Amino acid sequence: MLIPVILSGGAGTRLWPVSREGYPKPFMKLADGQSLLLKTYCRAAAVGNDEQSQCGEILTVTNRDYYFMSKDEFACAQLGERQSCTFMLEPKGRNTAPAVAMAARYVAEKHGREAVMLVLAADHLVQDQAGFAAAVANAVELANRGKLVTFGVVPTRPDTGFGYIEAGEQLGAGRVAVRFVEKPDAAKAAEYVATGNHLWNSGMFCFQAGAILDEMARYAPDVAAATEACWASIQAGKPSGQMLEIPAETFDKMPDISIDYAVMERSPNVAVVPSTFDWSDIGSWGAIRDLATPDEDSNRAVGEAIFVDSHNTYVQSPDRVVAAVGVADLMIIDTPDALLVAHPDRAQDVKQVVTRLKKQNHEAYKLHRTVSRPWGTYTVLEEGPRFKIKRIEVKPGGSLSLQMHHHRSEHWIVVSGMAKVVNGEHEIFVRTNESTYIPAGHKHRLENPGVLDLVMIEVQSGEYLGEDDIVRFQDVYGRA
Amino acid sequence: MLIPVILSGGAGTRLWPVSREGYPKPFMKLADGQSLLLKTYCRAAAVGNDEQSQCGEILTVTNRDYYFMSKDEFACAQLGERQSCTFMLEPKGRNTAPAVAMAARYVAEKHGREAVMLVLAADHLVQDQAGFAAAVANAVELANRGKLVTFGVVPTRPDTGFGYIEAGEQLGAGRVAVRFVEKPDAAKAAEYVATGNHLWNSGMFCFQAGAILDEMARYAPDVAAATEACWASIQAGKPSGQMLEIPAETFDKMPDISIDYAVMERSPNVAVVPSTFDWSDIGSWGAIRDLATPDEDSNRAVGEAIFVDSHNTYVQSPDRVVAAVGVADLMIIDTPDALLVAHPDRAQDVKQVVTRLKKQNHEAYKLHRTVSRPWGTYTVLEEGPRFKIKRIEVKPGGSLSLQMHHHRSEHWIVVSGMAKVVNGEHEIFVRTNESTYIPAGHKHRLENPGVLDLVMIEVQSGEYLGEDDIVRFQDVYGRA
Repeated sequence: MLIPVILSGGAGTRLWPVSREGYPKPFMKLADGQSLLLKTYCRAAAVGNDEQSQCGEILTVTNRDYYFMSKDEFACAQLGERQSCTFMLEPKGRNTAPAVAMAARYVAEKHGREAVMLVLAADHLVQDQAGFAAAVANAVELANRGKLVTFGVVPTRPDTGFGYIEAGEQLGAGRVAVRFVEKPDAAKAAEYVATGNHLWNSGMFCFQAGAILDEMARYAPDVAAATEACWASIQAGKPSGQMLEIPAETFDKMPDISIDYAVMERSPNVAVVPSTFDWSDIGSWGAIRDLATPDEDSNRAVGEAIFVDSHNTYVQSPDRVVAAVGVADLMIIDTPDALLVAHPDRAQDVKQVVTRLKKQNHEAYKLHRTVSRPWGTYTVLEEGPRFKIKRIEVKPGGSLSLQMHHHRSEHWIVVSGMAKVVNGEHEIFVRTNESTYIPAGHKHRLENPGVLDLVMIEVQSGEYLGEDDIVRFQDVYGRA
Repeated sequence: MLIPVILSGGAGTRLWPVSREGYPKPFMKLADGQSLLLKTYCRAAAVGNDEQSQCGEILTVTNRDYYFMSKDEFACAQLGERQSCTFMLEPKGRNTAPAVAMAARYVAEKHGREAVMLVLAADHLVQDQAGFAAAVANAVELANRGKLVTFGVVPTRPDTGFGYIEAGEQLGAGRVAVRFVEKPDAAKAAEYVATGNHLWNSGMFCFQAGAILDEMARYAPDVAAATEACWASIQAGKPSGQMLEIPAETFDKMPDISIDYAVMERSPNVAVVPSTFDWSDIGSWGAIRDLATPDEDSNRAVGEAIFVDSHNTYVQSPDRVVAAVGVADLMIIDTPDALLVAHPDRAQDVKQVVTRLKKQNHEAYKLHRTVSRPWGTYTVLEEGPRFKIKRIEVKPGGSLSLQMHHHRSEHWIVVSGMAKVVNGEHEIFVRTNESTYIPAGHKHRLENPGVLDLVMIEVQSGEYLGEDDIVRFQDVYGRA
């Protein structure tokens, strides 16, 4: 019995402007259009669904704000009935130990203490699925013997950005984990790579639910106690089988601590599986850049770029043409409302931009021009004096809340699909190339009753057009 | 009698992406919101309107495609009745000699051969109006003595990007122009600046209409002959007083030659007025950058920029936030649909980008997202499958043509001002926050009957949305 557990948190501020608070790193799409989260999900499903385990459940621990977006991503995998997705929703981020503990508590309850969990970060990239599956098989073997198993990636360079695990004597399909070491300096890192006994700590784990809970009780009793309290308060809420929301008041007592620090570095019961698959934590734009193929001048582009006598420059611009003239060693990352130009050696400092934007309370640290909602997305196309234009896309079956605005009227024009509209006392269908008008003060609701996406242009008109001028009367997603 | 003549041509390809074929350099707005053309016009009006001359006419020679845009710019000066604007419209660009000759022919006819012309380039920048006026006064004095007067800017650096004029002995308020020299190499330029007898050839001139026509007949008889032919064909068209359109067939015979090469470098009758005002030909992005005030790291920004450990970097981005991280010596120029990142030393090579875009027939070499029309502007906000959204702004009194589309319907929503709409057989008024629908195949017309700008959102819907699906029945601007 193998239950993949995806830990999906982390803002990824070093990947601004694509990663934002409301659209964090796991949702970032690579050049193939797939998000890191979707790729992680497919990777997990492939090992979780092998003949032996016969198990099709994946547990995702994430912030409750990302619940609907995550479900949408998983739907892209089109695994349908073969896969069941369970969500453990946190009211805020609290590092990895609480997430792992809550996941273990759930798995132990549902599948028994012997069930093996495979803990994966949602925002890492592994492309060698066969190598990954082989390492997982080795880890499962050790986990079944009661070990807490880490995946230690065999270093390909003396990286100073990762923690290392010192591997000791052979232990089944892996080795004993002797010691965890913090991010080393350059000399130490070079030594580690030379001796061959030090492996990158990938942040992926494998263990029986019971084993990790036992070690948690021993080495992090405060986390264990808070976990029991959270579990009890979830149960008190009579949760649905597939969505377990941790109440904020109980979760507030959870310590903010990593699984490494809480357990792995303390337990004598830890093994490491040396791993040679192509693991990347996508820690900065450099890692994304390296996924693109360079031309003869070492330039790379995702999108439309024109290079004139430029070298070692990466352009990522899905929507606009970018010209680089006489430049070298740059990363140019374009989004509809914000642009980054950074030296590759300074990719870590991109987070300083986010810090400054946040201090200014600038929209661009938080939201993209396209904003996800449970029913679909909206994109602000333009704002002007007394008007705002949005493209609204509603998923089949999606429904906006029954709502009313005090200060704005709305013109709706359906450009694709079919809309069901409540407008005051009336309910009508609005077809492609038809329009309707919602006066200020009218209760209204927009639904997509069809099986195709609904695309609608909304022109708002009024003296105040803030998102907070909304009164919600009913909402199928519990937002009323 | 002093008649300013503005030569407004030149694509300014080194100033892409702001300067484009359909929106060339003279229309480029500086940080204060004024275009180079408007600034030139105001400069000209100030010297043309002095007490002595009592003359309020300015003649602009430009391509016919820029007629309405130029008029709109001049209207921004709000000089009203005090200033009369005459346009000489060329069907294509043919360098400066034909433009000057045609201007001289007009001035001689209307104001007499003794009338003095002050020839200015539309895309240069002079901020020291008093210094400029003083130099013009000196030039006029020499012009009244029959001289062809050039303005020689006293060099402030050994620039290799300009031609130089060697100044000889004193001649009234100026000096004799001994020799014109082409762009020198660095050593020559340094020598020129050291000796003090070489001045930058600014491309501005002052002469009597008769004097330049005579020298033209002597040194460039082909231009003189073509000028007479063009003048005759204009007259044959019974032009209005203020808009003289040169017919294409006649203008085709005009040689493509500069006034320097055709006359100035050959005539012994040329004087130079040494000038110390702050002249710039805005030859590249470096000149625009230098207009902004640097911070302590030599960074400059027009728009919203965040600099993290960056130096000597210029950001021009009116609409989006730009973050520069760990970079130096860059110019980052942002527009809604295209971005330039260039090294300041390579600013000249920006034209190579335009060449490549043109070869690809890429929209971004030609048009901005906002396109000027005689009646106002339209901006494409978004294009998607089977829909396109535009913001349409119509000037007071402006009127689109009476037209029809075969393949698209249009939803019109007025967000500001008032529209008069012909829709099939009906004529209606559409007020702010009202909408109307134009089915495919319906004849329609949009007018702004009011005194405020009309702002309208148009959502087009249909299987083909190209600008060429238009049948024009009537047009007040002669485009039917």
